Amino acid sequence: MIKVTIWNEFIHENTQEAAKKMYPGGLHLAIGKGIACDDFEIKYATLEQDENHGLSEEVLANTDVLLWWGHCAHEKVKDEVVDRVMSNVWNGMGLICLHSAHMSKVFRRLNGTSGKLIWREANERERIWCANPGHPIAQGVPESFVLDYEEMYGEPFMVAPDAQPIFISWFEGGNVFRSGVTLQRGNGRIFYFRPGHETFPTYYNANVLKVISNAVRWCAPTVRFPYPTTHRPNADEQISPKVRQTSPEA
Amino acid sequence: MIKVTIWNEFIHENTQEAAKKMYPGGLHLAIGKGIACDDFEIKYATLEQDENHGLSEEVLANTDVLLWWGHCAHEKVKDEVVDRVMSNVWNGMGLICLHSAHMSKVFRRLNGTSGKLIWREANERERIWCANPGHPIAQGVPESFVLDYEEMYGEPFMVAPDAQPIFISWFEGGNVFRSGVTLQRGNGRIFYFRPGHETFPTYYNANVLKVISNAVRWCAPTVRFPYPTTHRPNADEQISPKVRQTSPEA
Amino acid sequence: MIKVTIWNEFIHENTQEAAKKMYPGGLHLAIGKGIACDDFEIKYATLEQDENHGLSEEVLANTDVLLWWGHCAHEKVKDEVVDRVMSNVWNGMGLICLHSAHMSKVFRRLNGTSGKLIWREANERERIWCANPGHPIAQGVPESFVLDYEEMYGEPFMVAPDAQPIFISWFEGGNVFRSGVTLQRGNGRIFYFRPGHETFPTYYNANVLKVISNAVRWCAPTVRFPYPTTHRPNADEQISPKVRQTSPEA
Amino acid sequence: MIKVTIWNEFIHENTQEAAKKMYPGGLHLAIGKGIACDDFEIKYATLEQDENHGLSEEVLANTDVLLWWGHCAHEKVKDEVVDRVMSNVWNGMGLICLHSAHMSKVFRRLNGTSGKLIWREANERERIWCANPGHPIAQGVPESFVLDYEEMYGEPFMVAPDAQPIFISWFEGGNVFRSGVTLQRGNGRIFYFRPGHETFPTYYNANVLKVISNAVRWCAPTVRFPYPTTHRPNADEQISPKVRQTSPEA
Repeated sequence: MIKVTIWNEFIHENTQEAAKKMYPGGLHLAIGKGIACDDFEIKYATLEQDENHGLSEEVLANTDVLLWWGHCAHEKVKDEVVDRVMSNVWNGMGLICLHSAHMSKVFRRLNGTSGKLIWREANERERIWCANPGHPIAQGVPESFVLDYEEMYGEPFMVAPDAQPIFISWFEGGNVFRSGVTLQRGNGRIFYFRPGHETFPTYYNANVLKVISNAVRWCAPTVRFPYPTTHRPNADEQISPKVRQTSPEA
Repeated sequence: MIKVTIWNEFIHENTQEAAKKMYPGGLHLAIGKGIACDDFEIKYATLEQDENHGLSEEVLANTDVLLWWGHCAHEKVKDEVVDRVMSNVWNGMGLICLHSAHMSKVFRRLNGTSGKLIWREANERERIWCANPGHPIAQGVPESFVLDYEEMYGEPFMVAPDAQPIFISWFEGGNVFRSGVTLQRGNGRIFYFRPGHETFPTYYNANVLKVISNAVRWCAPTVRFPYPTTHRPNADEQISPKVRQTSPEA
Repeated sequence: MIKVTIWNEFIHENTQEAAKKMYPGGLHLAIGKGIACDDFEIKYATLEQDENHGLSEEVLANTDVLLWWGHCAHEKVKDEVVDRVMSNVWNGMGLICLHSAHMSKVFRRLNGTSGKLIWREANERERIWCANPGHPIAQGVPESFVLDYEEMYGEPFMVAPDAQPIFISWFEGGNVFRSGVTLQRGNGRIFYFRPGHETFPTYYNANVLKVISNAVRWCAPTVRFPYPTTHRPNADEQISPKVRQTSPEA
Repeated sequence: MIKVTIWNEFIHENTQEAAKKMYPGGLHLAIGKGIACDDFEIKYATLEQDENHGLSEEVLANTDVLLWWGHCAHEKVKDEVVDRVMSNVWNGMGLICLHSAHMSKVFRRLNGTSGKLIWREANERERIWCANPGHPIAQGVPESFVLDYEEMYGEPFMVAPDAQPIFISWFEGGNVFRSGVTLQRGNGRIFYFRPGHETFPTYYNANVLKVISNAVRWCAPTVRFPYPTTHRPNADEQISPKVRQTSPEA
């Protein structure tokens, strides 16, 4: 069993009519329903749930892969929770950042970048091309697929350069974007996946859900421990005595 | 002219006899003297210098490449100064992190990692091997060179995986370490270089100084502007009108 | 079931007393016995076996992961067999190159490099450090382990720069080496693993065998098809008629 | 001075009316004229020039950066000349592969891939986006620029995964492509740049020429020697005598 926690900031679906209609109960539920299968144990957490945004140390210790969707409330996420997520990733927990989570504290701090990109809300067609068909995250996904309309995210994308492109998007309005990229920090595997505007039916799309399911399996931890585990080892080999030099300035 | 600012936390050389003797006036001066040449304009900044640790917005705007040495006072560096350094790197400023700066806020946050490694102070011999002789940072440096004694840093090193190994170290006590690695964040090039314990004559070593000089040239900015510069562009290509789908849940 | 084919040039064990004594019947048998488990179906192939060196199109089509050990007869491997192996890797077959296979045609051509390194036969101690403990190939392997004596391979190693270091070796004589690295070409995953001199008991070492077993699982194909599958697609979007420019030189 | 050799297969411009009209005298001349400047010493070489295709050992020894354009005659390039180019790249010579050179022996063998991609000749608009504005190859090039019509090359592109994306293209017909990527093999830096169909005025475009000029400077060698230079060194550190184990099988 892979223990999956889907975190959603869950604000638009409470405050904007279009989002509420598209994702009644929140987009986390749509994702959870969409990827449900026998070997995923899926739980949910949201920003306002409790003082830990639903992400206590205990919850994270029981999470193999954390999904993250946030947009308008990135700055409301407490630094202490961000630190907890980062340290769990370093120990091996998988992390999937979705859509506007490119500007989340969690994603930006694990990249060491601003997370910036260029964008446009214009209901435009997105074609998602697979650039790495042999990667487990692309398994069973066609060479390209279409989302009839999405928000545009465009290059340049301020992501860390170890981002391996699995998917690259074409937008009707003339832009391109590395839409699916893998990263690693410490023992933890990370996947960023671009599509998922809150008022569009993206999280009901079979290919989108297939990518997210594959990513959950790929991000699931191999190990779960601090890295490195040793800190100040004795020498394994003999060290000869040294005559110490003095400073040429002395 | 390349404008170089050498930042040193400058505590050990004021408080520990061995460090004071090895680097009278601070190790930043030894580095500055060691890399001095006609096309470097070198300035210095230290932790206690002023409320900005000597790194005001104006100083950074006039810095092409920042060198960073810190050890016992990482946590005393203000978050606001760290943010300023990071944002200058994203815009194009070069950064060279030296020795124990692997645990500096600046280095850890630009990596998105804990920066951890294993270490030992045992006056042991270090052999530094060049793993990428064609890289500009390795120019004029021999295939390997020796530091008679140094502190040991060992793998596993929690650095971001885009770290390209230029140098790999062998230690007498049985350890290995990726001692010189390049990274990029936004428009800024970063080099981490391992040697440089405060009580050892490392910053008087000709090969060490050669590597640092080369790194200054390689890290010097090509451009210096926010990335991306555009934020919310109009479409360059025509976007067709869409009939919006409703939610399958609605 | 993962279908594994272990290819050995199988010359030293027939011609040199020390190799014959260490690996009676060939080192491929020792590896096969050492990694045997319920979900590996292991077969063998050798240079002199038939006109295809035991690697007909049919054999490769029935191989998920190919292991390769060669040393003194790299140039005797037919180009046509090398091309067949490469094209199977591009389609998704996994490949594990062992020890002196760094100079095999297969490894060099998949890297695009000369494969060169520096070496020494001096019965020296090798300590293998894990640089990426969260990687599936490192699962269950200690932070470091020792081979009492091995041939030395040292940096600089002419490997392609996408080589992700999983293991880095320390040698008694003063050298270091990226001993375990992952690569990808087309849909196929590749692992290079350094230890394995023909007269040393390396392939009886539990940690070495554990690494090879893990690598077999990691290299096993996700997909098995040519990449890309489409070649000359029609346009998915409408292309406007163009007035063609003439040459400014005309 | 940077010594540049522009190699062109030079067949279409002799045999096809449209190519002859667009590039009278050959597209190599248009490129040479377009990038000419005080510190480039530019020479030319073509397939039929002599038995070395104009690329004798002497010519390559006097070449800092080689540009390569080929399309219909990849298989006519002698293996011996390909080997000579590869070995010069490994020693430090820069290489720029243009457009259909993705299928040249030189590019494929330096990648270790098939070089394949998907393509279409339909006179479609190409928008080239910069994904890495801080890279020296992007210096002075706008965030995006347009070629009014070009041949389409689309993902998936079978390039080695160390290919760092500098430019990503959008095509009118719905495709995307990593149009400008850097690679390194041995000491040599390599740049692949997509645009340049033989019947289109691409090599008269100021942005295309700017990218090629920048790439020449970036690819120019730092060093020029075999890698590694040492082969079988004595031990720098003392190696203790060993009692050799026998085989568990013996």
